[in-house]
Amino acid sequence: MRYIEYDDATPEVKAVYDDIMATRKTDWINNFWKALANDPATLRRTWESIKEIMGPGGTLDPLTKELIYVAVSTTNQCGYCIASHTAAARKAGMTDAMFAEVMAVTGMANETNRLASGYQVEIDERFKPR
Amino acid sequence: MRYIEYDDATPEVKAVYDDIMATRKTDWINNFWKALANDPATLRRTWESIKEIMGPGGTLDPLTKELIYVAVSTTNQCGYCIASHTAAARKAGMTDAMFAEVMAVTGMANETNRLASGYQVEIDERFKPR
Amino acid sequence: MRYIEYDDATPEVKAVYDDIMATRKTDWINNFWKALANDPATLRRTWESIKEIMGPGGTLDPLTKELIYVAVSTTNQCGYCIASHTAAARKAGMTDAMFAEVMAVTGMANETNRLASGYQVEIDERFKPR
Amino acid sequence: MRYIEYDDATPEVKAVYDDIMATRKTDWINNFWKALANDPATLRRTWESIKEIMGPGGTLDPLTKELIYVAVSTTNQCGYCIASHTAAARKAGMTDAMFAEVMAVTGMANETNRLASGYQVEIDERFKPR
Amino acid sequence: MRYIEYDDATPEVKAVYDDIMATRKTDWINNFWKALANDPATLRRTWESIKEIMGPGGTLDPLTKELIYVAVSTTNQCGYCIASHTAAARKAGMTDAMFAEVMAVTGMANETNRLASGYQVEIDERFKPR
Amino acid sequence: MRYIEYDDATPEVKAVYDDIMATRKTDWINNFWKALANDPATLRRTWESIKEIMGPGGTLDPLTKELIYVAVSTTNQCGYCIASHTAAARKAGMTDAMFAEVMAVTGMANETNRLASGYQVEIDERFKPR
Repeated sequence: MRYIEYDDATPEVKAVYDDIMATRKTDWINNFWKALANDPATLRRTWESIKEIMGPGGTLDPLTKELIYVAVSTTNQCGYCIASHTAAARKAGMTDAMFAEVMAVTGMANETNRLASGYQVEIDERFKPR
Repeated sequence: MRYIEYDDATPEVKAVYDDIMATRKTDWINNFWKALANDPATLRRTWESIKEIMGPGGTLDPLTKELIYVAVSTTNQCGYCIASHTAAARKAGMTDAMFAEVMAVTGMANETNRLASGYQVEIDERFKPR
Repeated sequence: MRYIEYDDATPEVKAVYDDIMATRKTDWINNFWKALANDPATLRRTWESIKEIMGPGGTLDPLTKELIYVAVSTTNQCGYCIASHTAAARKAGMTDAMFAEVMAVTGMANETNRLASGYQVEIDERFKPR
Repeated sequence: MRYIEYDDATPEVKAVYDDIMATRKTDWINNFWKALANDPATLRRTWESIKEIMGPGGTLDPLTKELIYVAVSTTNQCGYCIASHTAAARKAGMTDAMFAEVMAVTGMANETNRLASGYQVEIDERFKPR
Repeated sequence: MRYIEYDDATPEVKAVYDDIMATRKTDWINNFWKALANDPATLRRTWESIKEIMGPGGTLDPLTKELIYVAVSTTNQCGYCIASHTAAARKAGMTDAMFAEVMAVTGMANETNRLASGYQVEIDERFKPR
Repeated sequence: MRYIEYDDATPEVKAVYDDIMATRKTDWINNFWKALANDPATLRRTWESIKEIMGPGGTLDPLTKELIYVAVSTTNQCGYCIASHTAAARKAGMTDAMFAEVMAVTGMANETNRLASGYQVEIDERFKPR
């Protein structure tokens, strides 16, 4: 079986699905979790980590964290992740203008990362970690 | 010559250096620009793009954009860029706690990007662009 | 022509196709080789390298090598390669549980690779090559 | 502070350090964990995940999992991770011959991943997930 | 709106579209630009950079630059970019034989990049920048 | 042993070293080959592939192929490979101006690769392989 639907899930998987839906205030589960459910240990560990990292309570608000998630997924060119986290970021308040700025910064960083590497630029003394 | 120092620079390069220092309210030029100065056209174009993208005036504040730059540079594992943009982000207000959260999100996104790809997860209908 | 079918192939290409089918004990050729056949020199060189590296006789068994291939393809997020090497790994004996463990390790390594880079961790003396 | 030494650590961090040393049957902590200790939540979560994933008890033995970790770190070109996991793999039993085979497979996979993408090879019907 | 068609574009976007078509001696606009048009500043900046970098007048001819673009896009495994720049390279004169050689070099470089990293090879003194 | 010097090499390895020096019209071996020599089979296979791919006789001249190698190594951010292939490209005739153009194209391609992926741009019908 490829995607584990709620009704076919074991109690352990169902408990994670229930927590995902409750935390996200939604009534459906997206394919990522239904695929991970083939490995309940990874499903649980991944969800618990995501919940801990992406939720409220830290110094960065959830929207900022979703923008970072979109930027990383775009850098890695993960089609599924770009689609799902762009949707999640919009739900968290990302406007069209914000998305455009995330793309501009992401594109620019990918360009200058290669310029710095290709020109073999050495780290300035002032930039070294203390 | 590897790094073009201010005193050795052509007027065209000096003009860019002056604009970098004025814009950043600083009195020095880091190695990245001194290396790019070997190609004045790329120096100018890259600086103008960075200035336009990273400056104030958009919907994302400069700190948020620096956090995204750090996340992308970390994903690409560009040593110079991680060092220089971590410094830039700190100057823009990034605290230790914010840095730690950027790292946690970046690490998690790199993990789930591969889980989504490896499990060959298909994009949910709801996540497809309209 | 996009994919070179057996009947349309030159004797040089046919010889490689024959060796692929004999080595793999199968009666068909997958698209990867049919695409490479547009460049017979690359087809031959790639197949000979794959045959030498992935075959039996070394210290790692063929299954372990296929698991590594899946992990690398997942890290690079190559859709074709994930699909074809997941199939090859299953043929070589990979169970659902093994696949899940490869995914867990691959995801974790991608996460910690970025944490190590982003925190600019220096190599411990004990880890340096002798 | 850059690396948190044991004597300077909070009880929460010390508990993780103790568990790392006990689990690995060693009396020192490498820089990766001492850097992560700046963020105790990430230190704990990362260690718990690593311990769960890389330990014994699954279908893949610890050596095989370390080989996969080396292959992924090599693909991502993370200097610290290559050094530390090559050392870990050797401790788990990796011989010179095994290391050479991991490198050969990793190199080959990185090559064919690009050939498959560059030739725009479509996934064969037989390779599609059921 | 996902793709901005010419007739729906603002005068600012239309001006860029007109310049793209005039520069490329074509009468249509591909999806990349129609997507970027959602952010007119990025559309303009990206087009101006591409026009400056990829056009004639430098020391490398346009065909060589397109071959490099294909090699980089293949390394990054960007499906859209591989398709569009392979087409652009063919328009600039790339033959089947040239494409095959670009693929062979790109594949080989991706392989040896990992062998060099995995074996932790140190830069020879003679190769260090002066 | 980390690097296999000529005088310590087996006849099999010495034969490869001799061929490298003869082919490249040089009297020394760089660290990459001395590291691979720990695995004579990979040393031989890698050298034979490089010799076949990078040598004269195809439709692309050796300089163009070295420029592509530099572009790919820069995209992957492999420090050793950037240093060694930049040196090789200079030996093959790369001028400062050519290097600057390779960097500009490589940077730009890395930027637009992410813009295309992040905006989820679909491949135009005209760009699809026939």
